[in-house]
Amino acid sequence: MIDQKMPNWLKQRAFLTPDRIAFCTKEETVTYGKLNRQVRSLSLKLSGIGIDKQDKIALLFNNGLDMVRLYHTMPYLGTVAVPLNTRLSAEEQKWQLEDSGAAILIYDEAYRQRAQEIKKLNPKLNMMSMRELESQAEASWTLHAHVNMDDLHTIIYTSGTTGHPKGVMLSYNNHWWSAIGSALNLGIENNDKWLAVVPFFHVSGLSMLMKNVIYGVPVVIHSSFDPEAVNQAIIKDGVTMVSVVTAMLTQMIEKLGDGSYPNTLRCMLLGGGPAPRVILEACKDKGIPVFQSYGLSETGSQIVTLSPEYMFEKLGSAGKPLFPCEIRIMKDHKAAGPNEEGEIVVKGPNVARGYLNRSEATREAIRDGWLYTGDIGYLDEDGFLYVLDRRKDLIISGGENVYPAEVEAVLLQHQEIAESGVIGVSHARWGQVPAAFVKLKDPEYAVTEEEIIEFCKGHLAGYKTPKHIFFVDGLPRNASKKLLRRHLYDLLPDHLKS
Amino acid sequence: MIDQKMPNWLKQRAFLTPDRIAFCTKEETVTYGKLNRQVRSLSLKLSGIGIDKQDKIALLFNNGLDMVRLYHTMPYLGTVAVPLNTRLSAEEQKWQLEDSGAAILIYDEAYRQRAQEIKKLNPKLNMMSMRELESQAEASWTLHAHVNMDDLHTIIYTSGTTGHPKGVMLSYNNHWWSAIGSALNLGIENNDKWLAVVPFFHVSGLSMLMKNVIYGVPVVIHSSFDPEAVNQAIIKDGVTMVSVVTAMLTQMIEKLGDGSYPNTLRCMLLGGGPAPRVILEACKDKGIPVFQSYGLSETGSQIVTLSPEYMFEKLGSAGKPLFPCEIRIMKDHKAAGPNEEGEIVVKGPNVARGYLNRSEATREAIRDGWLYTGDIGYLDEDGFLYVLDRRKDLIISGGENVYPAEVEAVLLQHQEIAESGVIGVSHARWGQVPAAFVKLKDPEYAVTEEEIIEFCKGHLAGYKTPKHIFFVDGLPRNASKKLLRRHLYDLLPDHLKS
Repeated sequence: MIDQKMPNWLKQRAFLTPDRIAFCTKEETVTYGKLNRQVRSLSLKLSGIGIDKQDKIALLFNNGLDMVRLYHTMPYLGTVAVPLNTRLSAEEQKWQLEDSGAAILIYDEAYRQRAQEIKKLNPKLNMMSMRELESQAEASWTLHAHVNMDDLHTIIYTSGTTGHPKGVMLSYNNHWWSAIGSALNLGIENNDKWLAVVPFFHVSGLSMLMKNVIYGVPVVIHSSFDPEAVNQAIIKDGVTMVSVVTAMLTQMIEKLGDGSYPNTLRCMLLGGGPAPRVILEACKDKGIPVFQSYGLSETGSQIVTLSPEYMFEKLGSAGKPLFPCEIRIMKDHKAAGPNEEGEIVVKGPNVARGYLNRSEATREAIRDGWLYTGDIGYLDEDGFLYVLDRRKDLIISGGENVYPAEVEAVLLQHQEIAESGVIGVSHARWGQVPAAFVKLKDPEYAVTEEEIIEFCKGHLAGYKTPKHIFFVDGLPRNASKKLLRRHLYDLLPDHLKS
Repeated sequence: MIDQKMPNWLKQRAFLTPDRIAFCTKEETVTYGKLNRQVRSLSLKLSGIGIDKQDKIALLFNNGLDMVRLYHTMPYLGTVAVPLNTRLSAEEQKWQLEDSGAAILIYDEAYRQRAQEIKKLNPKLNMMSMRELESQAEASWTLHAHVNMDDLHTIIYTSGTTGHPKGVMLSYNNHWWSAIGSALNLGIENNDKWLAVVPFFHVSGLSMLMKNVIYGVPVVIHSSFDPEAVNQAIIKDGVTMVSVVTAMLTQMIEKLGDGSYPNTLRCMLLGGGPAPRVILEACKDKGIPVFQSYGLSETGSQIVTLSPEYMFEKLGSAGKPLFPCEIRIMKDHKAAGPNEEGEIVVKGPNVARGYLNRSEATREAIRDGWLYTGDIGYLDEDGFLYVLDRRKDLIISGGENVYPAEVEAVLLQHQEIAESGVIGVSHARWGQVPAAFVKLKDPEYAVTEEEIIEFCKGHLAGYKTPKHIFFVDGLPRNASKKLLRRHLYDLLPDHLKS
């Protein structure tokens, strides 16, 4: 586009269709007109407490309208949202607040105690509860009527293969093109109604909030995942589209039993790692329109999705790229041929411009506009993507990414642990859970599995905490002493081998 | 977007959904896969006859797959299409070929004789029939797999208030954003099927071809307008969306009689000038979902459309801008208030970058990214646009624009005519037709109305030719001798006064 400015999305949506329903929660229903008035007021209150253009505003919230409203204050103020994963430990959250240089943390009343814990870890961090913010006076300030499409809207932290998480920088352009690319694949129907049950702090939940204002499609918000409630929303409330991860879908199907969904449900968008064939077959039997997809925080939501007409024919494939996007498999620095495995590399206007304050990691991940995902897969002869392995050693537990390196680093902080190695083991409900192998400094010292798990809980989100600890005399390493995680699988007790 | 390149649209569409139906005509049905193969072959033939990047290729075709295929060779070759209005005179077409500097004219067999007439007017013009082109050998040439979004795709000539028509330069960006803006308003439904009956040489028809590849929605092509055939396509063939102008809609409703359309018809997109209330009321009575719209060649199709929910409440309004667009009413160099009349001024990424080789006209029309349309209207208190008058003195006849200045200039070429003034008078079928007032050089000379009309036919498209000639002793002019066209209405015989 010649002009990189666009009308502020919520403002424009509220102008175009003020009376259309934007959101339904258990408690309330808001139109775009009302939502916009609320967001403008909230923006002026943020301005009143000194929040200024380009400030980063961290958010610690469960799914709900407060988080929606705060997200939409960003374009009005020119600020950048830093949503925190609510499941992280206080220490992890503190680290992200420091790394992003957040001007303030706004938190849900539900996280008052957590906010205090974070404050204890770093008393200099600035924070305020939603209730306190609401009671502030509105500043007199001119809210931005336009967005600069290249400006950042969100920084979402994602874990990597090494060290600390990295803040993925997502611009308005990224969010816009993600929404448009998805619309060109899934369509925008007149009676559409999305159900939002994936977290708004993840790119999957956030992307739904963007589609909400860009498409003008109503979103039903569930503040937490209850498979029975989701089923009822589909069966009774006319929800037409749902985003889920495999663990959720499994539970929904379990609860559904012999029942079925009405054909108003036109899209079950499935993300968060490859789905087991058994689940897909169950969906096929029940006629559930599952759209497998593949995406990362760096792609602003899904970038590859299986089109309706290939839903069953290419079962197990993540599909083809969105219309404005491209995909390649790279092997030995060359594009691989059909059915040849290699690294999945993607390109498109929805791909993030990089990682906050990490120019080296950015240069390594994004070359010539192509994002090197680190995931392994192949394209079949028709160009359909099959994802074989998520990023090297990545563990996906209930749709959340767990990087072994991060868990291993925490284990090494334990004063008795000399070496550590973490892998994922199968789990009926969560898909995978982390399991750790540790070598103690003093093999005679009687530290227990429970003690180590307890120690990890103090530093890591629950889903990252190893569920099994195995004591070993040494870890498998190659000649240059690099840990060979894949050899750890051989050390597992039989009942955990998958 | 960071990267201004995008996959070639037809290529990408054919890759994503090769087996989906792209077009149906009376004679054939083509999938995207087949269409792409045909277009690639045609591109290589064009390359074979020496057509090169940035060449302009003029097209003289009735609606049909040949024109579709030729349009899609542009991104593969990096060339620019110059569609010619088939209803123009040979002289007018010759002028556009010269003005655009077209490297070649490709024409339908149906226009072989017309091509010869043009050739007689300028023997240097290069031209070839579609049949001749098809028989050429394919060059070995690498077709472009990507489009540069800022490159031009089309130059569409549009008449203006003064002098010759101007070539509107439409880029891939313009077409893309027009399609996306429309999708965000009208939706993209799974069972959608467009009927194309408006000319592909106009922006309204062309925009449908762009939506075809971008959305992946099948288009039914009628090579000419037959109201009965259109009605049957809606009633029997499941057409869900039709673009029409008022004159077409009027005839369709007449033919429909007491019948009605099935509710598969979800959008009757109405463009080409304000619709009379009586037609809208008739549609309302019949439950026809009319979407009034407002657009120009310069906006790459409609830029203002009435959303479904306001279809009847705001009857007579053209609606609100598309999502990425904005609208203002300017009066005395200031934005007018609600319900205040002024010039309609629009902005958005679909707005053309200007006129070919006419930097002054471009500077005058587009200021600060805002297109000054010359049309008069107002915004009501809710922001809905009401178009009062199309560009100063513009006559709209059957959806085609006729500029008085152009007709007046032709009249002045007649050796007996000293002065001329042209206005539009009401016409039951075409909405308006041109009527001319002429002052003869020698009032004694016995030139007839028929002779003058015949003379005009030799230089102008039929729809531009005046249907009435009135002989006057002088034309109404202001102090500085400027023609006061609005005073001509007083000189009309009573039966033509509306």
